[in-house]
Amino acid sequence: MIRLLAFLIQTGSHVAGWRHPEAWDNPLCDFEYFRHLAETAERGKFDAVFLADAQGYPRVPGREAFSRTESPRLEPISLLSALSVATSRIGLIGTASTTYNEPYSLARRFSTLDHLSAGRAGWNIVTSTTESEAHNFGFERHMGHAERYRRAAEFVDVVRGLWDSWEDGAVLADKASGRYIDPDKLHALNHDGAHFRVAGPLNTPRSPQGHPVLVQAGASDDGRAFAARHAEVIFTSHPAMESATAFYQEMKALAAEGGRDPRSLVILTAITPIIGANEAEALALQDDLDDLVDPVLSLSKLQWMLGDFDLSDYPLDGPLPDIPPTDASHANRASVVEMAARENLTIRQLARRISAGRSSRTIVGTGVQVADELEGWYRRGAADGFIISPPYFPGGLSQFVDRVVPILQARGLFRQDYQGGTLREHLGLARPPNRFELDPSLAGEPECW
Amino acid sequence: MIRLLAFLIQTGSHVAGWRHPEAWDNPLCDFEYFRHLAETAERGKFDAVFLADAQGYPRVPGREAFSRTESPRLEPISLLSALSVATSRIGLIGTASTTYNEPYSLARRFSTLDHLSAGRAGWNIVTSTTESEAHNFGFERHMGHAERYRRAAEFVDVVRGLWDSWEDGAVLADKASGRYIDPDKLHALNHDGAHFRVAGPLNTPRSPQGHPVLVQAGASDDGRAFAARHAEVIFTSHPAMESATAFYQEMKALAAEGGRDPRSLVILTAITPIIGANEAEALALQDDLDDLVDPVLSLSKLQWMLGDFDLSDYPLDGPLPDIPPTDASHANRASVVEMAARENLTIRQLARRISAGRSSRTIVGTGVQVADELEGWYRRGAADGFIISPPYFPGGLSQFVDRVVPILQARGLFRQDYQGGTLREHLGLARPPNRFELDPSLAGEPECW
Repeated sequence: MIRLLAFLIQTGSHVAGWRHPEAWDNPLCDFEYFRHLAETAERGKFDAVFLADAQGYPRVPGREAFSRTESPRLEPISLLSALSVATSRIGLIGTASTTYNEPYSLARRFSTLDHLSAGRAGWNIVTSTTESEAHNFGFERHMGHAERYRRAAEFVDVVRGLWDSWEDGAVLADKASGRYIDPDKLHALNHDGAHFRVAGPLNTPRSPQGHPVLVQAGASDDGRAFAARHAEVIFTSHPAMESATAFYQEMKALAAEGGRDPRSLVILTAITPIIGANEAEALALQDDLDDLVDPVLSLSKLQWMLGDFDLSDYPLDGPLPDIPPTDASHANRASVVEMAARENLTIRQLARRISAGRSSRTIVGTGVQVADELEGWYRRGAADGFIISPPYFPGGLSQFVDRVVPILQARGLFRQDYQGGTLREHLGLARPPNRFELDPSLAGEPECW
Repeated sequence: MIRLLAFLIQTGSHVAGWRHPEAWDNPLCDFEYFRHLAETAERGKFDAVFLADAQGYPRVPGREAFSRTESPRLEPISLLSALSVATSRIGLIGTASTTYNEPYSLARRFSTLDHLSAGRAGWNIVTSTTESEAHNFGFERHMGHAERYRRAAEFVDVVRGLWDSWEDGAVLADKASGRYIDPDKLHALNHDGAHFRVAGPLNTPRSPQGHPVLVQAGASDDGRAFAARHAEVIFTSHPAMESATAFYQEMKALAAEGGRDPRSLVILTAITPIIGANEAEALALQDDLDDLVDPVLSLSKLQWMLGDFDLSDYPLDGPLPDIPPTDASHANRASVVEMAARENLTIRQLARRISAGRSSRTIVGTGVQVADELEGWYRRGAADGFIISPPYFPGGLSQFVDRVVPILQARGLFRQDYQGGTLREHLGLARPPNRFELDPSLAGEPECW
């Protein structure tokens, strides 16, 4: 079965999506907007909604470019906690950085979301990409790429240990005996590593899923190695099927080499669908959206995706120059550079192109055409499913739900209704065993608490 | 008008409250429990619900004492975000530590809660009291008391600056012109202090209340000085009216000395009501609850309130020894020591007494008797209102709502219904001006972003 996530990317993946006449007015901080989107995705039986995040407002050349819409946003775990009450079945995946958080706090917040939602929480693990975040947390510069991934690996290990620090059944709440907690099922962690010292136990009992689902999107070498070891869902983005298939095969092989069942790793690729009742209507919608783009803004977005590379010295109608590596997101840069080279695009054309749907695959057509392409990617082993990143909201999402989902369902490729209750059950992922039940010798000495 | 907060203290303020036959079964992680309590408090027109917090599981002498119920809990801001959807008028106050958080993250989370709830958020500022928290955040020992308060003052200043970093109206979202944001209404903070370096701006626009309401409970010298300067609501606890009145007068005077309008500081004192249809029924309820207390547990709780002071070498039927100062919570220790001295209690009697309702004033009687005492405290200047901390849930809260609130309403001492929409409006607190609108020269140089 195809897996489907709805990427609730603020005002839509198209940089001018918010200007579409049917786009929600001023949605950034409007809970009713997110409630409507989550309800729409749940009506479409999506596995989960997905929220990106950063903890900074990126520096952008030219103050006018502050009208870019990527950055200001509500904090995802709080927003998803609110959405847990507005929905009942759909998964709730939020992004949080291992570079600018502490594992104890974050373990608790995702555990809480999993409790609130009765087992629907997922954590998209990022290491952060922008200098602006460093400057909000006391650092002169953003931590280096390799160091970020070392910290991330230790961070995830600590978080998983804390999620295990209460065994299932540790809360007795037995009125008759007066025993509230079974202390033999509580475990100190006493972690003492290169980046963190964390005693534990967590002060939130183990959550319905045991561990919220771990999601990861890094596509660098470090990112792929991390994902093959830790991720249960990989969120990737490919402009064409060939690179998607190669990535899919590589990641499944890496997971198997590490001793994992490749089916325990769900690989999803980002798709921006631009849907019309017929092909001409879809193409007209794409043109309408592109006509709304401010060229200064597109260029600013392109520069941001290239790691804040300044393109102002290069002619807009010339080719993309060589872009040197930076410590910002490798994945964004690689996919943009690849797209420019493959399609021989000028800077102007490239900027216009990525405005439409970041670097993800854009499919323009009828519901049948979109369904055909998704089926093709799925059957040819390019993805286990898709992250649907509509160009604008709410129309871009409801069109997918109304015009594409029923076709996938009729073809037997997508669920008619939810079968399970938890996000793990939606995705076909097992509930993780508790490390302290597997090996009681791992538990720290109890003196610490 | 009297202000009322509902203290949703896990299983109730009485240590054995969870064992009451009508207490909610196994509530710690049950959202439906908290939803029911918040709905009940909103039915009673309370100003707000209040959630305490810590980020550790305190060390307790004797593993059997793990059945104490203070500690395991859901993370408050996430839980309040969920409750914002389940309620529509009541304020939502959560506790978060300035010692084990970063100001950028916390500013954003409370701003998000304020957006989600349309202006009902409040932050109870604590500096943390237990070693167990230090050990979960990489520290050998808990930060010293004075240093914690210096960090707290800087933390709050940074948070307030971040809340101001977007002026009202900075989000234009003007589809026609294509201008999403007015960059002239965005301000860098460029804070560079002893504890924090934070560039800003926040990446969440200014929230409905401007600043979520600031609540504080410290009763030490440092805590009182901090509260007089920063707090809009003070949460205090006094076993008797005399000390409450003295504290009230001192805090209002301190605020006035600092140039504040004393009415901008709302002082609330904690009350545990034990309510019966008649006095005999209330006394029987108190006896029933006390009979359910495990004596080992009461002693453990007393030791914790005394800053983990070990009482095992002192006879249970003898007096409380001199308790040396520690860097843990000064307020808890002072109120317990005062209660023991004033009522000449043995250790055993003191332990049993504080089990009933922490160190707060316990009122045992009919709805009229409880209302009489609240009216007396209010009219004689001991408090602007009360934090109601029921001995068990949900019954202890619904009895207050059904038996006490209508009497206070009939006497014209409490609202018949909500008048305003925000927590500030409920409490009669002004919406804070924006520091950058007041003084544009405060804004940092925009190069940083």
